[in-house]
Amino acid sequence: MSNTFGTIFRITTWGESHGPAIGCVVDGCPSGLELDADDIQKELDRRKPGTNDVVTQRKEPDIVEILSGIHLGKTLGTPISLLIRNTDADSSKYDEIKDLLRPGQAEYTWREKYGAIDWRGGGRASGRETATRVAGGAIALKLLKKHGIEIVAYSKEIAGIVADTHDLTSSNLGKIRKIVESNIVRSPDSESAREMEYAILSAKKEKDSVGGIIEAAVFGVPPGLGEPLFDKLSADISKAVMSIPGVKGVEIGAGFEASRMKGSEANDAFIIEKGTILTKTNNSGGILGGISNGMPIILRIAVKPTASIGILQKTVDYKKKKETEIEVGGRHDPCIVPRAVPVVESMLGIVFADHSILAGYIPRRIR
Amino acid sequence: MSNTFGTIFRITTWGESHGPAIGCVVDGCPSGLELDADDIQKELDRRKPGTNDVVTQRKEPDIVEILSGIHLGKTLGTPISLLIRNTDADSSKYDEIKDLLRPGQAEYTWREKYGAIDWRGGGRASGRETATRVAGGAIALKLLKKHGIEIVAYSKEIAGIVADTHDLTSSNLGKIRKIVESNIVRSPDSESAREMEYAILSAKKEKDSVGGIIEAAVFGVPPGLGEPLFDKLSADISKAVMSIPGVKGVEIGAGFEASRMKGSEANDAFIIEKGTILTKTNNSGGILGGISNGMPIILRIAVKPTASIGILQKTVDYKKKKETEIEVGGRHDPCIVPRAVPVVESMLGIVFADHSILAGYIPRRIR
Amino acid sequence: MSNTFGTIFRITTWGESHGPAIGCVVDGCPSGLELDADDIQKELDRRKPGTNDVVTQRKEPDIVEILSGIHLGKTLGTPISLLIRNTDADSSKYDEIKDLLRPGQAEYTWREKYGAIDWRGGGRASGRETATRVAGGAIALKLLKKHGIEIVAYSKEIAGIVADTHDLTSSNLGKIRKIVESNIVRSPDSESAREMEYAILSAKKEKDSVGGIIEAAVFGVPPGLGEPLFDKLSADISKAVMSIPGVKGVEIGAGFEASRMKGSEANDAFIIEKGTILTKTNNSGGILGGISNGMPIILRIAVKPTASIGILQKTVDYKKKKETEIEVGGRHDPCIVPRAVPVVESMLGIVFADHSILAGYIPRRIR
Amino acid sequence: MSNTFGTIFRITTWGESHGPAIGCVVDGCPSGLELDADDIQKELDRRKPGTNDVVTQRKEPDIVEILSGIHLGKTLGTPISLLIRNTDADSSKYDEIKDLLRPGQAEYTWREKYGAIDWRGGGRASGRETATRVAGGAIALKLLKKHGIEIVAYSKEIAGIVADTHDLTSSNLGKIRKIVESNIVRSPDSESAREMEYAILSAKKEKDSVGGIIEAAVFGVPPGLGEPLFDKLSADISKAVMSIPGVKGVEIGAGFEASRMKGSEANDAFIIEKGTILTKTNNSGGILGGISNGMPIILRIAVKPTASIGILQKTVDYKKKKETEIEVGGRHDPCIVPRAVPVVESMLGIVFADHSILAGYIPRRIR
Repeated sequence: MSNTFGTIFRITTWGESHGPAIGCVVDGCPSGLELDADDIQKELDRRKPGTNDVVTQRKEPDIVEILSGIHLGKTLGTPISLLIRNTDADSSKYDEIKDLLRPGQAEYTWREKYGAIDWRGGGRASGRETATRVAGGAIALKLLKKHGIEIVAYSKEIAGIVADTHDLTSSNLGKIRKIVESNIVRSPDSESAREMEYAILSAKKEKDSVGGIIEAAVFGVPPGLGEPLFDKLSADISKAVMSIPGVKGVEIGAGFEASRMKGSEANDAFIIEKGTILTKTNNSGGILGGISNGMPIILRIAVKPTASIGILQKTVDYKKKKETEIEVGGRHDPCIVPRAVPVVESMLGIVFADHSILAGYIPRRIR
Repeated sequence: MSNTFGTIFRITTWGESHGPAIGCVVDGCPSGLELDADDIQKELDRRKPGTNDVVTQRKEPDIVEILSGIHLGKTLGTPISLLIRNTDADSSKYDEIKDLLRPGQAEYTWREKYGAIDWRGGGRASGRETATRVAGGAIALKLLKKHGIEIVAYSKEIAGIVADTHDLTSSNLGKIRKIVESNIVRSPDSESAREMEYAILSAKKEKDSVGGIIEAAVFGVPPGLGEPLFDKLSADISKAVMSIPGVKGVEIGAGFEASRMKGSEANDAFIIEKGTILTKTNNSGGILGGISNGMPIILRIAVKPTASIGILQKTVDYKKKKETEIEVGGRHDPCIVPRAVPVVESMLGIVFADHSILAGYIPRRIR
Repeated sequence: MSNTFGTIFRITTWGESHGPAIGCVVDGCPSGLELDADDIQKELDRRKPGTNDVVTQRKEPDIVEILSGIHLGKTLGTPISLLIRNTDADSSKYDEIKDLLRPGQAEYTWREKYGAIDWRGGGRASGRETATRVAGGAIALKLLKKHGIEIVAYSKEIAGIVADTHDLTSSNLGKIRKIVESNIVRSPDSESAREMEYAILSAKKEKDSVGGIIEAAVFGVPPGLGEPLFDKLSADISKAVMSIPGVKGVEIGAGFEASRMKGSEANDAFIIEKGTILTKTNNSGGILGGISNGMPIILRIAVKPTASIGILQKTVDYKKKKETEIEVGGRHDPCIVPRAVPVVESMLGIVFADHSILAGYIPRRIR
Repeated sequence: MSNTFGTIFRITTWGESHGPAIGCVVDGCPSGLELDADDIQKELDRRKPGTNDVVTQRKEPDIVEILSGIHLGKTLGTPISLLIRNTDADSSKYDEIKDLLRPGQAEYTWREKYGAIDWRGGGRASGRETATRVAGGAIALKLLKKHGIEIVAYSKEIAGIVADTHDLTSSNLGKIRKIVESNIVRSPDSESAREMEYAILSAKKEKDSVGGIIEAAVFGVPPGLGEPLFDKLSADISKAVMSIPGVKGVEIGAGFEASRMKGSEANDAFIIEKGTILTKTNNSGGILGGISNGMPIILRIAVKPTASIGILQKTVDYKKKKETEIEVGGRHDPCIVPRAVPVVESMLGIVFADHSILAGYIPRRIR
């Protein structure tokens, strides 16, 4: 419920953007998994702000501290508590505009729901909370990798510029990852990367922002993960990614395009390859009837442009109940897509770790 | 978990397509709600098979029996058990092809997961189970209506033919519903309805099938529903609809289109109208930061073409582990979109009933 | 939540005492378990009313119908829906006293909570609902037995008369069961059985009732079941049995007596027997730190005397808010302990089935 | 699940006895509650070790740090993260005996379950984890008090010495609390307090330990809390207290004694006092049919003697699988009952806060 996600492998996250710290408690991780702070830090570093021109200039070192759940380098089966101190929170800019509703942001709805909000940097509605998902997700990703499941995500589209990914196969995974991490927009294709970067910087110059589409692939998933009826793998994946701030849509396999196909086109023919049942095409995105079918899981996620922009916008003063205008200052990402990529991988990691345990594919104790 | 959906207002469904019956237990419905079998039957009748040319010819009367939870015409606060007997299940056709994997269907994955499946009519993986969602959802819809929340869904697009819905406002709700129910494809616009019908019947003639997009709107939602962080309204809606068989994508508000907008376009300006804070546009689809903002909730759902088609397809014999071919006989919907419309409304009904109770907007006891 | 119990292996029950039917949906039962209606019926028959002088004379055949989840004699992994029609509900007696609060009963609290109650036979607060627990529990018991776990319960004490159980060992299980089922009070010792029966009939003659203590033993539990911290085996067992109507206390192992021991007495010394680590004594009742230790699980449950008695009692008219008197007619058990025995076994069955699956001891698919 | 307790108001706890820290995340606390670190610290100080002769001499200051969820002195409705650093953990004593199973402790079962344990101080199986329950519970207790619900617990019995509590009424609450906190054994009666203290110190001198019974009363509970069928107030209370280390039994109202009463004795007659329906006696302990009836909730909890004792005991070397002997050194409570008193209050606080919110008695947002 609410700030907890998952059934057996589950994360509970907490923390406000400008509070003393943020953190994550990972429960249900099998015992016996080798784990140290570096495993988590390296994923956090991928999401870290302040590293280049297309992301926010807030300078958070985002150093993770492991407070429990590990002994002699291995997980104990007990909760793993992860702590990240907030250090570069500059709240002064927020004081003047604290009652002005920033368009596209959550202040209005949080105030209506809770009667109050920590307005500094968006409080808990800030994208900053996703750092804790990445911290928790890093553990899931390590657990999955040990069991042959690997997840990759990247910017499939930014500002309408589409990346080429015709080589998306398990055997190319290392190559894809290398390209994705070699450009600041996390495109899987160097050429489009340059165009995407240019589009982001143009928007930034205009004090505007752009959005995009993240594509993710999960390789090595055995057939049989997913709990019908309501906890279908597709349903849990969708919930997981739709809970990420700024996400407005998700599609699996052929997705929306499938709605325009005929059955004879959309159906993936079953074939046998080296004794294994596969499908010839993968319009299903690796999920049939809510259960994995052994093919790669493929999905795409629509990310809206960053809501915080410097352009003058019409809005309302919440306290005075009066229309007014706002220029949102502060240090914002002109495009959150590149930094959302590790967040998507993390949330998928948690879904697959949880379903792998639920289905008995990953044991609760690693020997 | 699994066959149960919801936190306080929740449904547990059960039943195989060709077993003796299917059913739904609704738990957490507030006490004191006036309810009788007709309230449920009328929604079931909208999903019923065999009513016209564009749907399956299976003739199920789908008569609901209420077995508990109601006394003197009102809900008791105890579980409401709903029973629907299966009467027109013809299993003979399935016997011959029981080991042939039907492309696009769940037999393979269910067999891999469970080691067995009731292959007759798809067993529990059949679309037939959605009747029980409609039965349970009917109670949610009645509860919501009593508290001013109304849900409408319709075929926004079928086989690429797009319906016009420029009039989608709360005040037009009655009119929209009337048009939607007056044509067999459930289009909100009579003109496109004729084209959609034609497209479906053409596909049927070719033993093929088509898919489409369902759009849904929820009116009257107060600001404040949704439980951040993970149980965002948007996240729970997505899980709910992605759990419906055949759904491959979901988007809220501007959805995927938002990913191509600039922040200055996508942000909905806050305004004040008659003392109430609203947004000028509704690209957010009524949800900001996972919480409702008082605007209509708007979403779209991609439905793939029916997997069961009469055309000869390549496949695999599961037992013999051998490639072969299959022609899927039986009585199938050439397009499931029209009959999925009440299913979408039902699942949304359950999400909004649950979140309304969680947020304290609907009390647990109606006085 | 509420009418659902369990995490993976879980039951959802429904139904009012005098409504059309009662029932249970079992979700999360592994696929591949051989199961037919007889497996359930035989347990139901043990709880059935009307079979002898010490129980209620209501004559319910309690015939179970399996509506889903089984195909070709084996479970499918899908929900198993169980239906029991109510046939001998005589509601007339309740009409006259419907606003008089029966002392010791739940009418007052249910009315305060829900604003209404189906007063006929106690509605859902009736002990009759426990039939559905027995139906669902029968499946758990069969699953456990297949994996070497066996549960037995009996009347350890009735009306202060204590049964002798010095022979409570796994190897005596068959013998104990035979004695328990051979006397109408379900005592594990024939001698005390006669005294107990006499005490119950004496109370009955006085239109009064008596209570007692049920003891239960679970044999064959491997070390390692239980999910600390909060879902300790001991905690879940306690919740399970305290949810049975009329239960006012539970203790595990030495229980309340342990509170009067010294540490040097209460601690069970670890020993090795045939290569296995055991404890010499079993004051812990087979649970240490919330996790099973391989010794038999032993617990005792306090059952209050039946609240429905024919003696004139002071009470209140709920509607008139006036003090008055009541004589509760109807057909009641002068002692519910014997019929509660299979209910206790069933609830324990569900707890152990669930924890066996959670711990990975019982797989989700039986091959 | 597991390290999380509660449905809406819920705590997630983490931490090993000798790790860097322990902590608790409180989710679902209503927004708008005034709260600061002192509210929590004062409860923690009641459980703090090292304060007198009858408790362990480990000197933990147990200073709580609030890391999130509060802004301008009030709760935000977001998770409240509480951190307590471990400072006086002396692990050296544990190294020599790390493979010797301490009788009555959880090392054996945790090792069997997880394959490993942080043996230092019992790791997560240590009573030290209860500090985090007290921290989280303090918030629940403050929330409840604001809504008129007050909880008191005390040592009803230690080493067989029974305290007198004939004055247990709401109006005496202040007086009872004062006596309880004025003696180091937390007895509600000064006379028995002296005897209890003597009994504990005698056991300590013999390197042995004693147990006892904690009684708790909850005043001001409105009728209507509790969610039948399985989440009865009595069931959730039992689970909550049985999850506390060392607890072996629980009874509500007349409890085990009720099992020896006749119905005519056990039934509490309904009466009207000043227009309110009450019961003349309170054998039910304030709960009927799992729902509160407006009378004080009364329960008793059996606590076993501390397992860690200095006396030589027979045991087993886990690694060598060999019988041996052990003397458990270290600094242990000769009786944990006094320090368990605030733990019981905390767990009850969480149960009642959660049920108050579930029933709509406490709103999710305090205005």
